[in-house]
Amino acid sequence: MPISRIPSGIKGLDSLVEGGFPAPSVILISGTAGSGKTTFAFQFLMEGAKKGEKGLYISTLSERTEWMLRFMSNYEFFDPKYLEDGTIIYEDIGKDLGTLDNMKLIIRINEILAEHVPQRIVIDPINVVNNFVDNYRQFLFELVTLLKNWSAVSILTGEIKEGEKYPEDVGYTADGIISLLMKTEDNVIKRYIQILKMRGTAHSMALHPLDITSNGIEVLKARF
Amino acid sequence: MPISRIPSGIKGLDSLVEGGFPAPSVILISGTAGSGKTTFAFQFLMEGAKKGEKGLYISTLSERTEWMLRFMSNYEFFDPKYLEDGTIIYEDIGKDLGTLDNMKLIIRINEILAEHVPQRIVIDPINVVNNFVDNYRQFLFELVTLLKNWSAVSILTGEIKEGEKYPEDVGYTADGIISLLMKTEDNVIKRYIQILKMRGTAHSMALHPLDITSNGIEVLKARF
Amino acid sequence: MPISRIPSGIKGLDSLVEGGFPAPSVILISGTAGSGKTTFAFQFLMEGAKKGEKGLYISTLSERTEWMLRFMSNYEFFDPKYLEDGTIIYEDIGKDLGTLDNMKLIIRINEILAEHVPQRIVIDPINVVNNFVDNYRQFLFELVTLLKNWSAVSILTGEIKEGEKYPEDVGYTADGIISLLMKTEDNVIKRYIQILKMRGTAHSMALHPLDITSNGIEVLKARF
Amino acid sequence: MPISRIPSGIKGLDSLVEGGFPAPSVILISGTAGSGKTTFAFQFLMEGAKKGEKGLYISTLSERTEWMLRFMSNYEFFDPKYLEDGTIIYEDIGKDLGTLDNMKLIIRINEILAEHVPQRIVIDPINVVNNFVDNYRQFLFELVTLLKNWSAVSILTGEIKEGEKYPEDVGYTADGIISLLMKTEDNVIKRYIQILKMRGTAHSMALHPLDITSNGIEVLKARF
Amino acid sequence: MPISRIPSGIKGLDSLVEGGFPAPSVILISGTAGSGKTTFAFQFLMEGAKKGEKGLYISTLSERTEWMLRFMSNYEFFDPKYLEDGTIIYEDIGKDLGTLDNMKLIIRINEILAEHVPQRIVIDPINVVNNFVDNYRQFLFELVTLLKNWSAVSILTGEIKEGEKYPEDVGYTADGIISLLMKTEDNVIKRYIQILKMRGTAHSMALHPLDITSNGIEVLKARF
Amino acid sequence: MPISRIPSGIKGLDSLVEGGFPAPSVILISGTAGSGKTTFAFQFLMEGAKKGEKGLYISTLSERTEWMLRFMSNYEFFDPKYLEDGTIIYEDIGKDLGTLDNMKLIIRINEILAEHVPQRIVIDPINVVNNFVDNYRQFLFELVTLLKNWSAVSILTGEIKEGEKYPEDVGYTADGIISLLMKTEDNVIKRYIQILKMRGTAHSMALHPLDITSNGIEVLKARF
Repeated sequence: MPISRIPSGIKGLDSLVEGGFPAPSVILISGTAGSGKTTFAFQFLMEGAKKGEKGLYISTLSERTEWMLRFMSNYEFFDPKYLEDGTIIYEDIGKDLGTLDNMKLIIRINEILAEHVPQRIVIDPINVVNNFVDNYRQFLFELVTLLKNWSAVSILTGEIKEGEKYPEDVGYTADGIISLLMKTEDNVIKRYIQILKMRGTAHSMALHPLDITSNGIEVLKARF
Repeated sequence: MPISRIPSGIKGLDSLVEGGFPAPSVILISGTAGSGKTTFAFQFLMEGAKKGEKGLYISTLSERTEWMLRFMSNYEFFDPKYLEDGTIIYEDIGKDLGTLDNMKLIIRINEILAEHVPQRIVIDPINVVNNFVDNYRQFLFELVTLLKNWSAVSILTGEIKEGEKYPEDVGYTADGIISLLMKTEDNVIKRYIQILKMRGTAHSMALHPLDITSNGIEVLKARF
Repeated sequence: MPISRIPSGIKGLDSLVEGGFPAPSVILISGTAGSGKTTFAFQFLMEGAKKGEKGLYISTLSERTEWMLRFMSNYEFFDPKYLEDGTIIYEDIGKDLGTLDNMKLIIRINEILAEHVPQRIVIDPINVVNNFVDNYRQFLFELVTLLKNWSAVSILTGEIKEGEKYPEDVGYTADGIISLLMKTEDNVIKRYIQILKMRGTAHSMALHPLDITSNGIEVLKARF
Repeated sequence: MPISRIPSGIKGLDSLVEGGFPAPSVILISGTAGSGKTTFAFQFLMEGAKKGEKGLYISTLSERTEWMLRFMSNYEFFDPKYLEDGTIIYEDIGKDLGTLDNMKLIIRINEILAEHVPQRIVIDPINVVNNFVDNYRQFLFELVTLLKNWSAVSILTGEIKEGEKYPEDVGYTADGIISLLMKTEDNVIKRYIQILKMRGTAHSMALHPLDITSNGIEVLKARF
Repeated sequence: MPISRIPSGIKGLDSLVEGGFPAPSVILISGTAGSGKTTFAFQFLMEGAKKGEKGLYISTLSERTEWMLRFMSNYEFFDPKYLEDGTIIYEDIGKDLGTLDNMKLIIRINEILAEHVPQRIVIDPINVVNNFVDNYRQFLFELVTLLKNWSAVSILTGEIKEGEKYPEDVGYTADGIISLLMKTEDNVIKRYIQILKMRGTAHSMALHPLDITSNGIEVLKARF
Repeated sequence: MPISRIPSGIKGLDSLVEGGFPAPSVILISGTAGSGKTTFAFQFLMEGAKKGEKGLYISTLSERTEWMLRFMSNYEFFDPKYLEDGTIIYEDIGKDLGTLDNMKLIIRINEILAEHVPQRIVIDPINVVNNFVDNYRQFLFELVTLLKNWSAVSILTGEIKEGEKYPEDVGYTADGIISLLMKTEDNVIKRYIQILKMRGTAHSMALHPLDITSNGIEVLKARF
């Protein structure tokens, strides 16, 4: 019984993971500031929306919706109609951080999931929660447990420090971990993507060059 | 009086440890995310099941049983009949974490052991317990003491940070430590296995290349 | 709908970020001591003032206004008339640190913003707040949330330790991150600038040499 | 007045320390997991037993006596008769950890020493005590003070992290420190021994290759 | 309006900073033990005294005055008459540390400043205060704020760990930072000086060799 | 007025520090375990004793006097008659640690100094105090202040971790710092001595090879 998969929406990525992300699954997208995590997340949601899959974007940043979408609207893959017609839902839990405790925050997220029943879920960025909850590792454990109870593909974005590969707090419980890397070579930052973990998947073990253009993120053919 | 041994189920590994794991013993399998710890653990249990040895898999992740098994079912070594006929038992203590204190968690694990009397035991991953108990090092000490009172071969999987070789919290009390390594060479991740410790055993001291295919984990002949 | 942009005031920088900083946005300028963060901030404000844009400089250092301005007055870009005629406002919250709690400090900054309604905002340096508030990461989160509610371009300067690229406390929520680097090469410190993140902008990924002269900061053409 | 010495029981070691360990003295044997600390300790006790010297092995691991001895019994130097006839005493204080405070644990160890009056003492591994007592460094200080009141040669084994040379908590008060090293060279772990400190002794300052075979630990002639 | 400057008293230094230290200003002199921080400070005070400028040396070490002066008296630049006639005042706040809280210590230093109204101020070493006050970073912030209210040039000496360039606690608020470096080259320690920051000053960016002789500290011509 | 100096007792050392240690002064001797700190200290005391200078050795280790002296008696420089006739006094404050608080410990040491009025003082090793007092850095500050009130040359030995050069807690207040280094070169530990700081002294800046033989510590002529 082969594992069912869905396309990631990132050009050049699916062929590295046997055709797409396992469905259901919880995938961690990690990278430093500016590595393209939010862009990755929106490409993932837009890909689903084009096929009618309901998407949910949960922001932890307490920004007005327009603020973030303005930056995304520069990308050609971004089609605002899916936000307008409710195929993609934008929710902000930034205002709940600091007022809700661990358990209530989990309950709040569950309510959002129950209301929209999405097939693709994004929580971006997950690490900001660390500033507010008492026990971040417990929260992550319970959040991933919650997400695994919904038959969706969930993406958590995690900002890491330079030199880290992924946020170790959540690595063991994620089904997949993809690292967006920025390496300084000859005084220029080069972008790479690496699949560190993808359960049930014979995935690429290589560091693949990446480009971010007006088309969004694209995995390039390596030229080593 | 030679030490009795049991086959590990990992192709190419037994010849590096005088024919198999000492029985009884407590073995630590360490590796970063995506290094194959869970796959190793299930190969170990399936190997025993084929010979009629009762196996116990204790998950700490609070996942529905199907979630994990779905990913494992892609491997050719995986035979679901052993889970169906009770040769391999799947128990989840994830839901007990956070509600039971150190001592009660030890008692709970002891009850599971007493109920099933397994010959092969897996606790995967052990490090998640660190998020919940007051004194993780004491817990590990008492857990390994408990396991040594059962005449089984126990495998604890431990997720480590990049650059670590094994979780130092548990190294001294384990009878064996095996490290699953992922090293980036020429922009590709290469997999290796290294036996750091195996009491009573003249074990290999080399870094052996490893492959993970649909057959599971296999230790390759080194070609240095 | 292209993103509107404003010139940074730094010679040679705008061409690296599609013509200027996105407006509105929150930009983090990071660098070690002596890297030119305050000079950058005043060039940014003077550039706006020349075009009639109202600027606000919030100092966290509790210095008499003359103290800092004296050092700035050596630069040719610096025109004191804009401070005299109120185009650029100099406010000091250094005296409020240690007496106001997190929430009251946010309210105090909001009051300053409401009084002056600036188009360009500088808070310099932001990291000193860390010595006074209980939860610096929460404060940063709430400060950036506040700034995003004003339709201005805000610059936060952050002093970093050598070896750091940017203050990780604030990276995820900033729309842009620019690093002012000082690298010792052949026993001489060389200055560089690097744009690590600029949302909605196809920005340069290179390390660009920088010079600080009586004209202020200037990005040089790379000669690698 | 030359210092009296006793043979260590490790082939090739005594010639590096003017003929043997100073008697009395407290010696620290440090190494990572799998480096041979317990094997070293038993060779040391067996060497004494052959000459009629009473030995005491204090385990901190709360293992059944048979568990550890089973692994040791594979070595040719190991003669179980010395454990049967009481020349070597095996005591377990693992069960006392967590129930006794610092002072009572010291008193307990003193009682064991008073009961058996050994000439050779081993406490293996000492670092596990760190998980249980309030102030480990104070405990170590008092333990070594206690051991120095008995006219014996005492060996404390200490597990260290990779990259450490010895446990710094106890270095200053030990009369000798011997490091069992495992270095990865050309993808193979090589074993070495190094004498870092031996009071009153003109000791070797070199890194000596080591082998562990069915004969136990043996210091090899260096071939640099 | 050019910034007014005063000579530093260090031979070869003034030409690297447009003729001298900006007046008023707060300058941080950092270096490891033995790097010459106290010698630098006394040269600075003696230089002023020769021109009739009143100097104040505040020691934090609780040493009898003779103890430190004895070591300084070996230098040819050192003229005891300036201490005898009150041109240079030696005050010790070491005895106040541990008895005064943060605020009272600031008040105490302010009283000393008000009593003597110095043109050149030294506090040597500032970091010892860290052992006594509750919040060292707040103390530093308030101390520098205090010093900026006096129209003097103040020197704070800060002892750093090897590998550090300057004490990060105080870098952002200082007007200048000078690092006295000791680098081991070919098994000999070489001395260097580096100006990391000097507000309002186009300063040297190079590492300049330094010598300490009976004439005190002298910046040498680089011979790279 | 030249600074008065006393010979160190270490062959080859005095010529590197203008003839000897400044008197009075407080000198820190730092090194890892086995680097020869205690040997250095006894050579220093024996050198004084030969000239009739009273010496005081304060041990912090709570060892019976014979225990340590036994190891020292192997050295040819060691003459037990000076301990027998009271020229050198051996005091142990190890038993006071843990029972006296910071202030009482300082008073206790002052009483010992007042009783014996030594010209040469050793406290060996000072770092063990860190395990017992509440605020070690304050204790060190007060201890050195105390020692500076006695007109003696005091030596504090400090054990450091590998990679450290000296214990940073005490560096700023010591008049001199000497580092006893052990470097592994070609798989052999080589010994070196380096004078990092010596107030009022134009000292060697080089790393000098060192040997420890039956004659004690000797500084060798460098052969670089």
